[in-house]
Amino acid sequence: MKRIAILGSTGSIGRQTLDIVRAQSSDLKVVALAAGAKNLELICQQAIEFKPELICVPSAESAKEVARLLGAKAPEIVYGEAGLIAVATHANVDTLVTAVVGFLGLKPTAAAVAAGKTIALANKETLVAAGGVIMPMAKQYGSKIVPVDSEHSAIFQSLSGYQTKDIKQVWLTGSGGPFRTWDKAKIAAARIEDALRHPNWAMGAKITIDSATLMNKGLELIEARWLFDIEPERIRVIIHPQSILHSAVEFVDNSVLGQMGLPDMRLPIHFALFYPERVVSTEVPPLDLIKLGSLTFEEPDYDRFPCLRLAKEVASKNDTSACVLNAANEIAVDAFLKGRIKFMEIPELIERVLNKANFVSRPSLEQIIEADEQSRVLTLGTIEAKQELPGAGRGGAIKGSLVASEG
Amino acid sequence: MKRIAILGSTGSIGRQTLDIVRAQSSDLKVVALAAGAKNLELICQQAIEFKPELICVPSAESAKEVARLLGAKAPEIVYGEAGLIAVATHANVDTLVTAVVGFLGLKPTAAAVAAGKTIALANKETLVAAGGVIMPMAKQYGSKIVPVDSEHSAIFQSLSGYQTKDIKQVWLTGSGGPFRTWDKAKIAAARIEDALRHPNWAMGAKITIDSATLMNKGLELIEARWLFDIEPERIRVIIHPQSILHSAVEFVDNSVLGQMGLPDMRLPIHFALFYPERVVSTEVPPLDLIKLGSLTFEEPDYDRFPCLRLAKEVASKNDTSACVLNAANEIAVDAFLKGRIKFMEIPELIERVLNKANFVSRPSLEQIIEADEQSRVLTLGTIEAKQELPGAGRGGAIKGSLVASEG
Repeated sequence: MKRIAILGSTGSIGRQTLDIVRAQSSDLKVVALAAGAKNLELICQQAIEFKPELICVPSAESAKEVARLLGAKAPEIVYGEAGLIAVATHANVDTLVTAVVGFLGLKPTAAAVAAGKTIALANKETLVAAGGVIMPMAKQYGSKIVPVDSEHSAIFQSLSGYQTKDIKQVWLTGSGGPFRTWDKAKIAAARIEDALRHPNWAMGAKITIDSATLMNKGLELIEARWLFDIEPERIRVIIHPQSILHSAVEFVDNSVLGQMGLPDMRLPIHFALFYPERVVSTEVPPLDLIKLGSLTFEEPDYDRFPCLRLAKEVASKNDTSACVLNAANEIAVDAFLKGRIKFMEIPELIERVLNKANFVSRPSLEQIIEADEQSRVLTLGTIEAKQELPGAGRGGAIKGSLVASEG
Repeated sequence: MKRIAILGSTGSIGRQTLDIVRAQSSDLKVVALAAGAKNLELICQQAIEFKPELICVPSAESAKEVARLLGAKAPEIVYGEAGLIAVATHANVDTLVTAVVGFLGLKPTAAAVAAGKTIALANKETLVAAGGVIMPMAKQYGSKIVPVDSEHSAIFQSLSGYQTKDIKQVWLTGSGGPFRTWDKAKIAAARIEDALRHPNWAMGAKITIDSATLMNKGLELIEARWLFDIEPERIRVIIHPQSILHSAVEFVDNSVLGQMGLPDMRLPIHFALFYPERVVSTEVPPLDLIKLGSLTFEEPDYDRFPCLRLAKEVASKNDTSACVLNAANEIAVDAFLKGRIKFMEIPELIERVLNKANFVSRPSLEQIIEADEQSRVLTLGTIEAKQELPGAGRGGAIKGSLVASEG
C-alpha cells in the first residue's frame, strides 16, 4: 500500500492521480490533499470520497468554508503555505505528487525532499528555478524524485539499469504545439483560443500556452538538465507531432532507448505512483503503433519559437537566470490569458526582463525565492510601462494563486 | 580486457565482430577463431592480424592447408566438431560469439554454456531447436546469453532493470523483407536474385532468404520465447519497413520501451561484446530520426508469408517440432539457392515435413540432434520424391557445412 499526498488535487494532474487511486484502491491510499481556491466544492467531494487525514486550502476563509461544507465528515483542515508544507511532509505519506503549477510548488517540495519523501514531480518549475538546490538536497536526504512529465518519465524509464556515464545525449521530444505549422505573422496574430487548442494533450491553461510558445519544451530542457545531471548541450529537442515517442536516450554506443505510449498523463502518473514496481494499468488503452501508421520527426524552429531559444540560453547557467525566466514567463502567460498582451509579446517580455535583471551565481533557496519575486515585479512593471497605462491594482492578484496543474 | 572466441569468423557477423575488435583493440582480444572451408585464406589473414591462440577449420585437409599457408606464424590448429568445441570452451575465453548459421552451432554453444562462458548469441537456430535444453543449462552453469540478433538485442536492452513479470507483450519488429509489397503470384515467381535483395540489411545468403520468406521472423519468435521466458502468444510481430525500431517491450502498465538505431549489425554485436558496460562506438554512425523523416508500422500477412504462420504454430510447443521446422527450412533454403525448388515451395516443403514427422516431447539434446537429422533426411527425400528425379548423390553435401553467418 502506497500512501500518497497531492499538492494540487483539483487540477488536471491531481484529478488524474485520483482516477488512478480510484482504479487501484487496494494499492494506493490518499493521506493528504491540497487544492486551490477555484474549486472548493471539488476538494470537498474528494475529501468525502478518498477520506484523507488532512486537507489544505489557500486561506483561513476557504478553510472555514470547507469546514462548513464538510461538517462532521471534515478531516483536519489547514491553509496557506504552512498548510501546503504540512501536506507535503505528513508523517504517514510515502509519495508526494506535486501537481501545482508554477513557482508556488517550490517550498513545499523542498520541505518534502528534506523529509525524505518520494516526490512524483509534476511541478517542473521547482527544478527549473531551483534544480541546483533541490537535487543535492534529494541526495542528502535520500529523497527519490520520480518525474511525472511525460518526457522526463520517458527518459527516466529508458535509463533504468543504466548510468549517467552511459548517455551520449537525451532526445527531448515535443509535439510542436498548435502553431507548429503556422508562419510567423499568423503566430503573432494568434488568439487565446488558438493557443489553448493543443493538438494532442488535454492540459491546464498555463502549460497549454507554454506548449504553444514552446517554453514548455524549454522548461523541460532545464528540468532534464538537473534531473538527469546532464549538460544542456547534450539535450536535443526533437519535434514529433504525434506525441507517441515521449523521449529517448542515445547511449555512447549509438543505441537509442525510447519510451512510447498514448499521449495520456495517466501513464506517467501511474508509473511514478508505483515506481519501482510496474503495475497493471486499466486506466489507459494500450498503444497500437499499427493503427497510428507513422511517426514523424522534425527540427525545432528557434526563430518562430523564441521562448525555446531563451530557455536554451539560460539552461547551461547555474545562477538565478532560469528562475527569472520562469517567473517572467508565469506573469507573461497570465497576462496573455487575461488579454493584456499578445502572443508574441510573451517571449519579447521575457527577453526584456532577462536583459534587465541581475543574476546571483550558485544561489541558495532564499536567493532563488527573492529572484523569483523580483522577476515578477520587473515583469509586471515592464508590461505596465509598455502599455503606458496607470495599471494600479492590476498585477496584485497574479502572483501566488494555487493554480490547477499538469505535467 | 574481454577475451573472445568466434565461431564463424569469416561470415558476415564474424567479420563485423572483428571490425569492432580492430576498432577497440585495447579492450578486446581474440583468443580463438573457427571458420568454414569456403574461405581458408581469410581465416589465415585473420590469424595473422589478430594472433589467436587457436583456430579451427572444417577438416584435417583444410587444417593441413592452413598450417602450410601460415607456416611459422601458425597458432594451434584444430578441426571438425571437436575443434569447434575446443574453440567454444577455450580456457582463456570470456565471451563466445556464435556466428555460424544453422543447427551446426548447437553442440559447441551447448559446450560453451556448460563451461560457463558468456554467449554472444548470433546463431538463432540453437535456441529455436533446443531452447528448452539450453536455457536451463545456462541457468545451471551460470552462463550469460546475450543476444546478437538486432531484435533480441533490442528487447534485451529494453528489459534492462525490469523483470519478466513486468512484460505484457513483446513487439518483434521486422522489415517485411524484399517481398513486403509483392502479391502472391509475383512472390511465387520470385527469382533467387530477387530474394537476395534485402531492402535494409546486408547479410549472408541463408538469413536473407529467411528474411524474404519471413521464416527469419518466425525463428526469431521462437528464439524470443526461450530467451525471455515468455509465451509465444505474447510476442507480437510488427512489420516496420524502415528497420529503425529494432523491437520493443510493452509493459503491464501500457508503457512501451523500444530500442532504435541504424540497421547495422555492428550495433548489437558491440553491445553484446561489452555487456554489461556501454562503451563508445566509433564503428556505426549515430541515428538521426529527423533525416529519416518517418517510421511506419503494419500487420504481417500470414497468407502471403506462410513460413511465419508455420513458425508461429510450432512456437508454443516444447517438443522437437521447432527443430524439425528449422532443419526442413535449412534444407529448403539451400535447395532454393541451388535452383532445385521455387520460392513458394520453401513453405510447402516445410509444411509437408511437419505433417509427416513425429515429435518427441520435452526432448534431450540427443533427441534434438536426432530429430534434426531425421528432418533433414525427410526434407531431402520429399524434395527428390517431388521432383521424381533419381537424385542419387545430390543431397549429401547439403548438411553440416560451416556456412558463414549473420544475425
